[in-house]
Amino acid sequence: MEIKGDQIWHSPSPAELLAAAGQEITLKACVHNIRELGGIAFVVLRTGRYLIQSVYDKEVCPDNNLSQLSAGDCVRATGLLRAEPRAENGVELLLHGFTVLSRPASPLPLNLADKELKATLGTKMEYRTVALRHPRERAVFRIQQALACGFREFMLSQDFTEIHTPKITGIGAEGGAEVFELDYFGMPATLAQSPQMYKQTCVAFFDRVFEVGAVYRAELHNTSRHLNEYTGLDFEMGYIDGMEDVMQMETAMLQHTMAYVKEHCAPEIALLDVDVPRIGAIPCIRFADALALLKTLGGGKNRNDLTPEDEVLLFEYYREKGLGEFVFVTHFPTAKRPFYVMDDPHNPRETLSFDLLFRGLEVTTGGQRIHDYDAQVAKMQARGLDPAQFESYIGVHRCGLPPHGGLGIGLERLTMKLCGLSNIRDASLFPRDINHLVP
Amino acid sequence: MEIKGDQIWHSPSPAELLAAAGQEITLKACVHNIRELGGIAFVVLRTGRYLIQSVYDKEVCPDNNLSQLSAGDCVRATGLLRAEPRAENGVELLLHGFTVLSRPASPLPLNLADKELKATLGTKMEYRTVALRHPRERAVFRIQQALACGFREFMLSQDFTEIHTPKITGIGAEGGAEVFELDYFGMPATLAQSPQMYKQTCVAFFDRVFEVGAVYRAELHNTSRHLNEYTGLDFEMGYIDGMEDVMQMETAMLQHTMAYVKEHCAPEIALLDVDVPRIGAIPCIRFADALALLKTLGGGKNRNDLTPEDEVLLFEYYREKGLGEFVFVTHFPTAKRPFYVMDDPHNPRETLSFDLLFRGLEVTTGGQRIHDYDAQVAKMQARGLDPAQFESYIGVHRCGLPPHGGLGIGLERLTMKLCGLSNIRDASLFPRDINHLVP
Repeated sequence: MEIKGDQIWHSPSPAELLAAAGQEITLKACVHNIRELGGIAFVVLRTGRYLIQSVYDKEVCPDNNLSQLSAGDCVRATGLLRAEPRAENGVELLLHGFTVLSRPASPLPLNLADKELKATLGTKMEYRTVALRHPRERAVFRIQQALACGFREFMLSQDFTEIHTPKITGIGAEGGAEVFELDYFGMPATLAQSPQMYKQTCVAFFDRVFEVGAVYRAELHNTSRHLNEYTGLDFEMGYIDGMEDVMQMETAMLQHTMAYVKEHCAPEIALLDVDVPRIGAIPCIRFADALALLKTLGGGKNRNDLTPEDEVLLFEYYREKGLGEFVFVTHFPTAKRPFYVMDDPHNPRETLSFDLLFRGLEVTTGGQRIHDYDAQVAKMQARGLDPAQFESYIGVHRCGLPPHGGLGIGLERLTMKLCGLSNIRDASLFPRDINHLVP
Repeated sequence: MEIKGDQIWHSPSPAELLAAAGQEITLKACVHNIRELGGIAFVVLRTGRYLIQSVYDKEVCPDNNLSQLSAGDCVRATGLLRAEPRAENGVELLLHGFTVLSRPASPLPLNLADKELKATLGTKMEYRTVALRHPRERAVFRIQQALACGFREFMLSQDFTEIHTPKITGIGAEGGAEVFELDYFGMPATLAQSPQMYKQTCVAFFDRVFEVGAVYRAELHNTSRHLNEYTGLDFEMGYIDGMEDVMQMETAMLQHTMAYVKEHCAPEIALLDVDVPRIGAIPCIRFADALALLKTLGGGKNRNDLTPEDEVLLFEYYREKGLGEFVFVTHFPTAKRPFYVMDDPHNPRETLSFDLLFRGLEVTTGGQRIHDYDAQVAKMQARGLDPAQFESYIGVHRCGLPPHGGLGIGLERLTMKLCGLSNIRDASLFPRDINHLVP
């Protein structure tokens, strides 16, 4: 990058700035904080990713008064760049002049200058659009971006095709009544609970597909781990020999993605003190065995599913054994899994399905799907569902599908656990829960 | 890639196959077509991206009968790979054995073996999940993937941060009554007409953001160029000097993206005979001047907007002059643009906004946005809107925003025009129009 006095920088990194020490540069940024110190002042500038310290000294900035400047102002600043080991990123800008490009109409409701934002979750939600201006709050979403980009990069490298499927749909795929309903030109419609049917449809012609898209659950939960609209990282792969192929693909994807985060998010990892997990072979346990183990640990109270407490117990159990922070739990009971999941041929009360837990939280549900038409119709009928109501879905099976399986990952949950956040709302730019429809 | 007899390939390219000629390989694929020819038969196998010819000869495939095999079967095929210049990709597989993994429950409603799918648009929509299995139909979506990936790659290279914003929202940003409404836990909600407000909000802390996400328009149109749910490629950039910065960014993005398509989609470009446009400087014309020009060409009948016919006339005009297949039209009348668009300070009846036309179709709307709180409140009031109803939006302006602008691109429209399709439904995997809610 060539640097000249008349060149305007967009969000240079500290390393780029250091390389340009000794030169006159121009920077456009937001005034993050001003600290007056005797005759001079430190004006911290916030770019799209970094904080850059600048120094105001009337002697060398004769055309501007510091009183013209307030926190929140967007400015065009010109000055001499110099190395300064005491500054946060080892560099500072000696201001020679600045122009205010725009400014707030009133003082901000939150103090962004503190190292950590001093606000309750409720306050952060109320002033969401301001809270996100805090360096630590926004950093979460650079990490989230890297998770999504790492996922995508890996899937593309494995010949998966990216798809975009409709979220306004005629029928729900995941069962239950927890769907948002709307009127679609006089037809009753729902918001997609998952791209399940579409992913399976696309396996018939792309063999392997993935999607990064919105998922809707009209659940009345109000917990630290549920959102009513979230971002799903979904994939589906054909010609598998069993669900182990899907689990292996996910393991390799997570290894790639965590490496991607490390490579692309060094400043955010440092800022948030993120512990990026090393992923080797991920331990696996069958649900029935997990239940027996959990009973010895004081959990396992629900015989059909894992409770949040169980998930934490399993995490601690494997971590203490030095087996890492991820656990696959497989063969969930048929009763608790949707109609498209394949039953275990050796035990039809269990399914060829799995969850992946990360630091004590379910972040993935996946498994092998039914590909045979007759088998799918039979399972629907056994559940009291009318196959005729799912004609557009089973029509795909009728025309042939390869053996296949896949999974869905909650991007916000993955972000939350990676960043060590205690509430999933902190991992969603604009969270949708039962109380929040704005901003 | 190492190739052994016991290794199963996933969707190898013809080039990879050619490099392995002379070896025994295993392939999993779908039987696309069978042509019997005297003692032997050609069995065309369809992988996730290619068609590979295989040859069945009872002499060397003694354990299998051809009668076991039908079009639509998913198989595991083993055989000797050999160069065969007369085959479509210069390679064929001499079958030594195959296993049927799954098969259709009934014959397919469309004949996929024809070079082009012989079906009307209506039939293709009715049997959408089958039509997409045709090589030409699915190829459109590999090109669409490349457009989205090229866009993303470019935005990331320019320090834009990828965001995921909610599609269930409290208020509409684009004006008009054409929104889908739903009940959100007792609160009236709508599906987002664009990520406009969220993009602007994020500019305050990321400077530059982009999103690939769903966009909803409850328009009662039934045309060849409208969908009610489509994929938006959106970006928004802070610290601009004017809307020209946005137009330059889009031009560079399109140059990058078209190069990406060329690099990654050679098979699909050949199959569909896609004419990837060369993009140099894109011509610009002010709306008022375009109207005057159009009148000399027999168009320009609407004094506030371009009609579809006008868009085609402008395209032809510039193409005939050798100026390429894209045209920017700028400075649209204030009356026809949303409340967040900045008026031209030299002429408040015009806005600092633009459309980009590609091959006679508007594929982008963009411009500079109002960043000043007082200016935004004044424009809302001048339109009879109550700023209090947009508190979560203008609260962002009140806390300060840099000068900024951005745009939204319709991915399906871009795909349609690039691939030379006559109806946008062919550029959407599962189109949503006023008649189609399934599949």
